[in-house]
Amino acid sequence: MRGMFISIEGADGAGKSLQAAKLSQYYKSRNINAVLLREPGATRIGELIRNIILDKNNNEMNPITEILLFAAARAQIVREVIKPSLEAGSVVICERFTDSTYAYQHYARGLDKNMVQTLNEYATGGLYPDLTFFLDIPPEVALSRKKKQASLDRLELEGLLFQQKVYEGYKKISSENNRVITINASREPEEIFLSIIKEITLKEEIQ
Amino acid sequence: MRGMFISIEGADGAGKSLQAAKLSQYYKSRNINAVLLREPGATRIGELIRNIILDKNNNEMNPITEILLFAAARAQIVREVIKPSLEAGSVVICERFTDSTYAYQHYARGLDKNMVQTLNEYATGGLYPDLTFFLDIPPEVALSRKKKQASLDRLELEGLLFQQKVYEGYKKISSENNRVITINASREPEEIFLSIIKEITLKEEIQ
Repeated sequence: MRGMFISIEGADGAGKSLQAAKLSQYYKSRNINAVLLREPGATRIGELIRNIILDKNNNEMNPITEILLFAAARAQIVREVIKPSLEAGSVVICERFTDSTYAYQHYARGLDKNMVQTLNEYATGGLYPDLTFFLDIPPEVALSRKKKQASLDRLELEGLLFQQKVYEGYKKISSENNRVITINASREPEEIFLSIIKEITLKEEIQ
Repeated sequence: MRGMFISIEGADGAGKSLQAAKLSQYYKSRNINAVLLREPGATRIGELIRNIILDKNNNEMNPITEILLFAAARAQIVREVIKPSLEAGSVVICERFTDSTYAYQHYARGLDKNMVQTLNEYATGGLYPDLTFFLDIPPEVALSRKKKQASLDRLELEGLLFQQKVYEGYKKISSENNRVITINASREPEEIFLSIIKEITLKEEIQ
């Protein structure tokens, strides 16, 4: 039986890493194999691409170059890890996936929506998450959390207006796709996690 | 007046670099500004991408990842260098461009032709060479020349069958596009160069 593919979406600072890790632990405690990934990256080649994308010195990067690099990293992670893992019956939990490209490159950068769709299709070969959690937190809160970190990457440095566009984008994506579930992420991590588990249990009962 | 955009195509070992350099010198001797470029690369970000593409350790790279990386490097070189240079009236001479993607990723790797076309369109924003020289040399000759080098890159290491597919691809591209001129590259460099100059002079007279 093919495993479930879950993506976790939202701003930098929304708490994606923590929830993804907790979710992975949850499956492991149920003796279900879970593969925890992040985008861009996770593969050796993907991490090399990630370094180029996020390096804050690369500020002359064109938005088209940026979206193509994200797509390249995705093409690798899908074929090298996600597809084989799902075929082996594992649950795949991925921090960011195709919805990030709509939120960041279409809604925030203004790239054409058809381009995003086409590149997502090329990169994924038509493989999309079964379930997506959008961690909903006001962009100014997410950004101020991130600013407490040692150093911000190129995309985190885009500023509040950019993050607001990303946020509005995510809300639109969430409203248009049944697959995407909005989770109030302004609460304590344990409460957020319980909401996620509740949705997953519902999904498992339907299947 | 917009400058002329010339691409030089053909196998590794066909003599592209030498002809591109000679052509650049030719323009400079006529007091015409010429910008000499190579793909993938030429920009700072493009060279970082080039390193990932050509590193022979990256042999787990998926063909879709590969074509997206080539497209990313192209998106950068077009917007950062080629377009502004042409607008400033310079001649742009580029070793490899969109035809390489057809030859290598469609004809040799077997990727869908529409995908190649779409990605070339995204990467170039619709900017294509005015004139393309395909340096026609038997693939076994080109490959044996390359093998005399210190070390081959990931694509050069694909072997003769791959190089033969690339070659057949180039012949097809050349037969289907008036823009592409086939140059017998099994001759002495100076003879090859004279053929190129002859074609450029013809093109200039038409314009």
